[in-house]
Amino acid sequence: MDNPSQLGALEAARLIKAGELTSEVLVRSCLARIEARDNDVGAWAALDPDRAIAEARARDSESPRSLLHGIPFGVKDIIDAEGYRTAMGSPIYENATPMLNDAASVALAKDAGMVVLGKTVTTEFALRTAGKTRNPHRLSHSPGGSSSGSAAAVADFQVPLAIGTQTGGSVIRPSSYCGVVGFKPTFGRIPRAGVKSVSESLDTVGVMARNVSDAAAFASILEGVPILELSNAQVRPRFAFAKTPAWDALSPAAHKAGRDAIEKARAAGASVVEIDLPPAFRDALEAQTRIQTYEATRSLAFELRMRPDQVSKGLKDYIVAGLEMQRSSYDEARNIQAGCRAALWPLLADFGALLTPAAPGEAPGNPSDTGSPVANAIWTMTGAPVVGVPGLMGPENLPIGVQVIGPSGRGAATLSHALWLSGVLSK
Amino acid sequence: MDNPSQLGALEAARLIKAGELTSEVLVRSCLARIEARDNDVGAWAALDPDRAIAEARARDSESPRSLLHGIPFGVKDIIDAEGYRTAMGSPIYENATPMLNDAASVALAKDAGMVVLGKTVTTEFALRTAGKTRNPHRLSHSPGGSSSGSAAAVADFQVPLAIGTQTGGSVIRPSSYCGVVGFKPTFGRIPRAGVKSVSESLDTVGVMARNVSDAAAFASILEGVPILELSNAQVRPRFAFAKTPAWDALSPAAHKAGRDAIEKARAAGASVVEIDLPPAFRDALEAQTRIQTYEATRSLAFELRMRPDQVSKGLKDYIVAGLEMQRSSYDEARNIQAGCRAALWPLLADFGALLTPAAPGEAPGNPSDTGSPVANAIWTMTGAPVVGVPGLMGPENLPIGVQVIGPSGRGAATLSHALWLSGVLSK
Repeated sequence: MDNPSQLGALEAARLIKAGELTSEVLVRSCLARIEARDNDVGAWAALDPDRAIAEARARDSESPRSLLHGIPFGVKDIIDAEGYRTAMGSPIYENATPMLNDAASVALAKDAGMVVLGKTVTTEFALRTAGKTRNPHRLSHSPGGSSSGSAAAVADFQVPLAIGTQTGGSVIRPSSYCGVVGFKPTFGRIPRAGVKSVSESLDTVGVMARNVSDAAAFASILEGVPILELSNAQVRPRFAFAKTPAWDALSPAAHKAGRDAIEKARAAGASVVEIDLPPAFRDALEAQTRIQTYEATRSLAFELRMRPDQVSKGLKDYIVAGLEMQRSSYDEARNIQAGCRAALWPLLADFGALLTPAAPGEAPGNPSDTGSPVANAIWTMTGAPVVGVPGLMGPENLPIGVQVIGPSGRGAATLSHALWLSGVLSK
Repeated sequence: MDNPSQLGALEAARLIKAGELTSEVLVRSCLARIEARDNDVGAWAALDPDRAIAEARARDSESPRSLLHGIPFGVKDIIDAEGYRTAMGSPIYENATPMLNDAASVALAKDAGMVVLGKTVTTEFALRTAGKTRNPHRLSHSPGGSSSGSAAAVADFQVPLAIGTQTGGSVIRPSSYCGVVGFKPTFGRIPRAGVKSVSESLDTVGVMARNVSDAAAFASILEGVPILELSNAQVRPRFAFAKTPAWDALSPAAHKAGRDAIEKARAAGASVVEIDLPPAFRDALEAQTRIQTYEATRSLAFELRMRPDQVSKGLKDYIVAGLEMQRSSYDEARNIQAGCRAALWPLLADFGALLTPAAPGEAPGNPSDTGSPVANAIWTMTGAPVVGVPGLMGPENLPIGVQVIGPSGRGAATLSHALWLSGVLSK
């Protein structure tokens, strides 16, 4: 096998189980790819090749513990992993002590026989100032954020899987820009212990992968549930399509991606029905911003109040509104959130999933502009499972994704619809 | 002033503002009290007198930043504070590196001019194995848990305020056993960033104090909102009283405490109406256990899976059910939680607050038995604000408390009712 780093995660694990590949060879192949590409792409905040190889060897000496035994993964650098500092894209933590423990999600992955390859670049506290990462499809462009390194590393075949987090659009948008699958499970499914807290009502751990089945398997492990094995054999897909309150803020390229996805889905036999979002969603975007800023000014109290000189002006400006916000205004926003959550189940009762553009357009032509969460923030707020599906290209010949959204708790059905759509879009 | 450590927090801060006391003198007085009592009570997991005195001096050189400027507080040892390790009552972390940062709540308190006195003893991960702390009212007895040291230190005049956390009953129960005020604000009000995550749907940060006004002021600071100043001048208190599903699991002493509180409240002019809890609450206790165990086995994945030899057998046995629980069973429990939350508002529409016993009885006569959360777990699950009110004594002449519960978001009204009741019970 010339380039094991090109393999998907489940595929590589099957070869490891069959004795045709080892975790060590796979990890070395990923490290070689990183070596060749890191100066350009800059997806990694920290690497420790010796540690990764030692972990891989230990896994090679065991019987497989799971369907992803021996598979390396990247960890967004706001998430703790033993032996690495958690630098959070901030000068406050750039020289922090290496962690003595793993985040819960990382421990669940290790316990399933998986191997930490390293820490991936995040924007400052997963909120603002961009890191060094470039879009692997065009180095002059942004990979998106805040899970910049996770998306870029997976897209560039440097690692088959990575963990990200989404508070606004930080899993699905970079996945769209980088042309990979992003999966944000239902709110609360993947434990957040050991993840830097920004906005407790919104922060959601998710995954990036190069295919939907890999994302589903990885997320199952991180959720601590039996691995979900998806099948293409299912009922005829029934999609709803909605122009969300964000529609006018999306580019023509995003509008076209939405229309192309509908057209291809219909041509392949799916039903796609355009629906209107109920009134609960009218103020959803603004409410998401209110919740995020109110909570972030409190969750980041140490950094903002004890280390203000080391917080970027951009971040301070971004969340300053939260300092002055009345709690009644925050409570109102939380009520809007609850209303949107409640409205999603009946809205999707007759459909398998909702389909919308995954990002405002193709990747911005400025690596320090990680883009707007406008296409994603409503769905993060509902807590709904969302899968970003790649396969389409925009007018600048860069990837552009659509997202498939299900009601909370219906991740498996949502992933099945995403798997079906992924097959259709990549044809 | 002979013993500033005897002062309440707001009272001491007024004296500091007036120039009649300094933060340093107050901190030294608390440290002297600890010196005299620590061998017996054992409330502290870690102390750093030089650091506390240096912080106090720095505050003495400034104009007051808040109504609690210069006041020392204890921090439960599952919560990060700069310069202290977070040992979590576990051998896994007993030699951990001192933290370089504060939890958000600790930073908010410091930013208001408050001073960290030290870390207070917690049970293992705020769940099981008891620490070294004894009940200051009778050293042969338990202080309760898991916020054992916070309750004991406040009760014993070693510090006027302390931070605790409650997942089942870990703020209100030890407050009852130790005869102090406990306040668990509405779920999500005090940020959890920097607090060890055990159960994301239940973990709630709260406070201990020796009077209700102090608790209200401290919680306001930790919530990042303007300080709530309570007044006794209010409408006639209207309490509901309910025999919860836990009633039969409470001791005759707890039943009597409930009846005594009702009698005294009525005698002082309150209306108290006995109501039945709606059917949503029937399975609430069992649902709380299911949510806690399902989430704790995942949140503690690093400790349980990577360091199993250093986790107590008691803790493993306690949460083992979470490992095998089907997600559908967890989802059902979360639905019960949502049902109870929704039912509390209409239930209390005609009342100011609900009144019930705060603990199963007086403190257990075994320091390693921190007691059962059976009186508290339902209310933690609803996310409702709860104030533990001391003032009554049980048949063994140990403190026994009642709790005052309001609907979510109505902390101020709940505290006002608690303040009124506190005045009545301590007469």
